[in-house]
Amino acid sequence: MTHKIDFYHAPNSRSGSTLALLEELGADYALHLVNFKRGEQRQSAYRAINPMCKVPAILHDGVLVTEQPAVFMYLADLYAEAGLTPAIGDPLRGAYLRWLVFYGSCFEPALVDRSLKRDPAPPSTSPYGTWEDVMNTLQTQLAKGPYLIGDRFTAADVLWGGALHWATMFKLVPETPEFRAYIERVIARPAMQRAAAKDAEFLTQLAA
Amino acid sequence: MTHKIDFYHAPNSRSGSTLALLEELGADYALHLVNFKRGEQRQSAYRAINPMCKVPAILHDGVLVTEQPAVFMYLADLYAEAGLTPAIGDPLRGAYLRWLVFYGSCFEPALVDRSLKRDPAPPSTSPYGTWEDVMNTLQTQLAKGPYLIGDRFTAADVLWGGALHWATMFKLVPETPEFRAYIERVIARPAMQRAAAKDAEFLTQLAA
Ligand SMILES: N[C@@H](CCC(=O)N[C@@H](CS)C(=O)NCC(=O)O)C(=O)O
Ligand SMILES: N[C@@H](CCC(=O)N[C@@H](CS)C(=O)NCC(=O)O)C(=O)O
Repeated sequence: MTHKIDFYHAPNSRSGSTLALLEELGADYALHLVNFKRGEQRQSAYRAINPMCKVPAILHDGVLVTEQPAVFMYLADLYAEAGLTPAIGDPLRGAYLRWLVFYGSCFEPALVDRSLKRDPAPPSTSPYGTWEDVMNTLQTQLAKGPYLIGDRFTAADVLWGGALHWATMFKLVPETPEFRAYIERVIARPAMQRAAAKDAEFLTQLAA
Repeated sequence: MTHKIDFYHAPNSRSGSTLALLEELGADYALHLVNFKRGEQRQSAYRAINPMCKVPAILHDGVLVTEQPAVFMYLADLYAEAGLTPAIGDPLRGAYLRWLVFYGSCFEPALVDRSLKRDPAPPSTSPYGTWEDVMNTLQTQLAKGPYLIGDRFTAADVLWGGALHWATMFKLVPETPEFRAYIERVIARPAMQRAAAKDAEFLTQLAA
């Protein structure tokens, strides 16, 4: 099996975290830039790849993988030797899956409601309960640290470190000392820095 | 490693799908009913288990797993011999992860907006794009059938079959012939029927 991955990416977007993960994993990938300014994500060529018109998307062995938590699980398992995922059977596997899914099922919907300044659904029907539940649960977990599932840095930190970096910058999430320390710990990593530099370059390429 | 799982469940709720999965897997679990009518989910005993105050939640090997897609991946891998998950390395693994995560990251947020009759975020910031994107993407996938990722019935079908059953019943999702046929195919399974019967019994127990 070859590892070669087709990676669909838009600079300065949610798919930046996948770029960072690919760098962390030392993965072998072919980059395909999707030009949002030109609306390429909604044109038929890209729609044929991901009918949701979203990035990130990857193609591997002819199979499409979308949705950040799914892309992360898939890639970290594919490059298991990089050590960014607890293996099946490792007790921490469940915590790792929980926090990756929590990102897409709770954090993002909570952030959308927050950024639109609209009320969440009533707590018992809202899939994330309340904004406070999300913040407290996350904060309590990170306070144990140094990483999301404890001592071990995993792919989940690539996703969360990047997301909290962005969300605190835009003042959507309060910059508590726990969040700040965690963000610094993650973004200081050489692969994260490398990904940020590459992304800036990709942005310039598209603007040219 | 013992497989014994602590399962936190409320009858007639989202955790019914996990009950169905446990039946499909023939899993060894200890049931803990959470009484929503009495508000037990927000009381300190349950908050100490899942600070999000939500079901489903499972505890295994001392580790908490929450969020339906994560619980599903975890359990299906734990009981891999039941054959409800493509293994790591199987090309269909990526499709399986994608559709499980799509449920929590796209379908549920879209359904919440829909049931509250509120506008989604602008398509490019909304994590699920538009309601039509979600419906079309799902419908196109299921039209290939017979199951979500093709010929093979997986844990993803337990989640989606149950969710579509419920969502069409409440007229939140249109009952197209593709959806109807898919729902029938899934809910006719003996384990799904067994889970439904057990859930009705649990409801009676709590009401007593
Ligand atoms: N994001 C969670 C959502 C779970 C959820 O919302 N469960 C509901 C049951 S339908 C619940 O526990 N509600 C209790 C409450 O908040 O009062 C998941 O996917 O597991
Ligand atoms: N549920 C998706 C959301 C991805 C997403 O919303 N990506 C944005 C980039 S920030 C996008 O592609 N937007 C393009 C558009 O809809 O116009 C995931 O988690 O991967």
